[in-house]
Amino acid sequence: MTTTGRRGRRPGDSGTRAAILEAARSRFSTQGFRAATVRAIAGDAGVDPALVMHYFGTKQGLFVAAMEFPLDPAEVVPRLLAPGIDGLGERLVGFLLQVVDELGEANPMLGLVRSAVSHPEAARMMREFLGEAILDRVAEAVGETVGADRPRLRADLCASQIVGIIMARQILELPELAAADRATLVGAWGPTIQRYLTGSLAS
Amino acid sequence: MTTTGRRGRRPGDSGTRAAILEAARSRFSTQGFRAATVRAIAGDAGVDPALVMHYFGTKQGLFVAAMEFPLDPAEVVPRLLAPGIDGLGERLVGFLLQVVDELGEANPMLGLVRSAVSHPEAARMMREFLGEAILDRVAEAVGETVGADRPRLRADLCASQIVGIIMARQILELPELAAADRATLVGAWGPTIQRYLTGSLAS
Repeated sequence: MTTTGRRGRRPGDSGTRAAILEAARSRFSTQGFRAATVRAIAGDAGVDPALVMHYFGTKQGLFVAAMEFPLDPAEVVPRLLAPGIDGLGERLVGFLLQVVDELGEANPMLGLVRSAVSHPEAARMMREFLGEAILDRVAEAVGETVGADRPRLRADLCASQIVGIIMARQILELPELAAADRATLVGAWGPTIQRYLTGSLAS
Repeated sequence: MTTTGRRGRRPGDSGTRAAILEAARSRFSTQGFRAATVRAIAGDAGVDPALVMHYFGTKQGLFVAAMEFPLDPAEVVPRLLAPGIDGLGERLVGFLLQVVDELGEANPMLGLVRSAVSHPEAARMMREFLGEAILDRVAEAVGETVGADRPRLRADLCASQIVGIIMARQILELPELAAADRATLVGAWGPTIQRYLTGSLAS
């Protein structure tokens, strides 16, 4: 609008970064994770796409920063997978509970869940981001390592329990889940995740 | 406001019923399920508490009607438990998927989940209603029938998977969960519920 007034100003790094994050939030929220391109976001922010990649590495990294996603899947997923598929269920639940307990009410994930529940576009954004950043990666690891059938279904089943953990413990605050110690919960939920990843899916 | 204009009108059953439901929604939403009394709701609606019980049977029945809860736990829980604890996990998941599929987008449960996620009072209301109407009943049956330890923790664990099923399939619409047939999902989720109810909780 008033580009004339801005022309002489040389925004510092933080101003440019903020403009990119703002453009990214807007594009991701309206177009979803997949359709929003780094090129379009860079255009909205008035910068070169290469600068976006310089700051954030990947589109996933840009999403993590823009939506304040509380962890970076590009770092976390390989770390949890590194010791192997055995025991992954318990490692994953233990890690999740640690993150959730540390963040408490300040967990930005709660805001993302709230948006997803109320706005179909936000749900699509989360579906596409979780799918590409986490679930496809987990599926790939499960498929390769154990040769399990239907790896992406397995990853989606894990997501169904993990979202339920956040809902039941953080949002509904069911009393026995809020009161139980972490070891009890890891013992209860861990084998569920492990079975979804590597066990028989028929009953 | 314009009570004068209404004075001559004798509201029929439906008017009285609507007034009770409106008063119930208001009390449940602000006070939670436990603290809202039938007496207070009847007072708000200007009727005798006995009339509320005549119409709705119990406070739970009043809640089901007022919040358009898509099933009546007083009817459903005993019916699912009747054939015994064996196979309850699969019966429960099968029933849940059937209800969810039939209701689709019109599922009033989605509205309740949306409220619970955004408003702590709505979350408390759901926690108290689900606890009293469903989870305590399931815990009692599990404790009595199989003498399982920590029956209410087991019921809460079931809730964590069930809420996750609704979230992942209906709200996030994860692709493989949306695409899988019901038998596959019952085979995947049923044993999880069954283990939470009767299995070992340590890994």
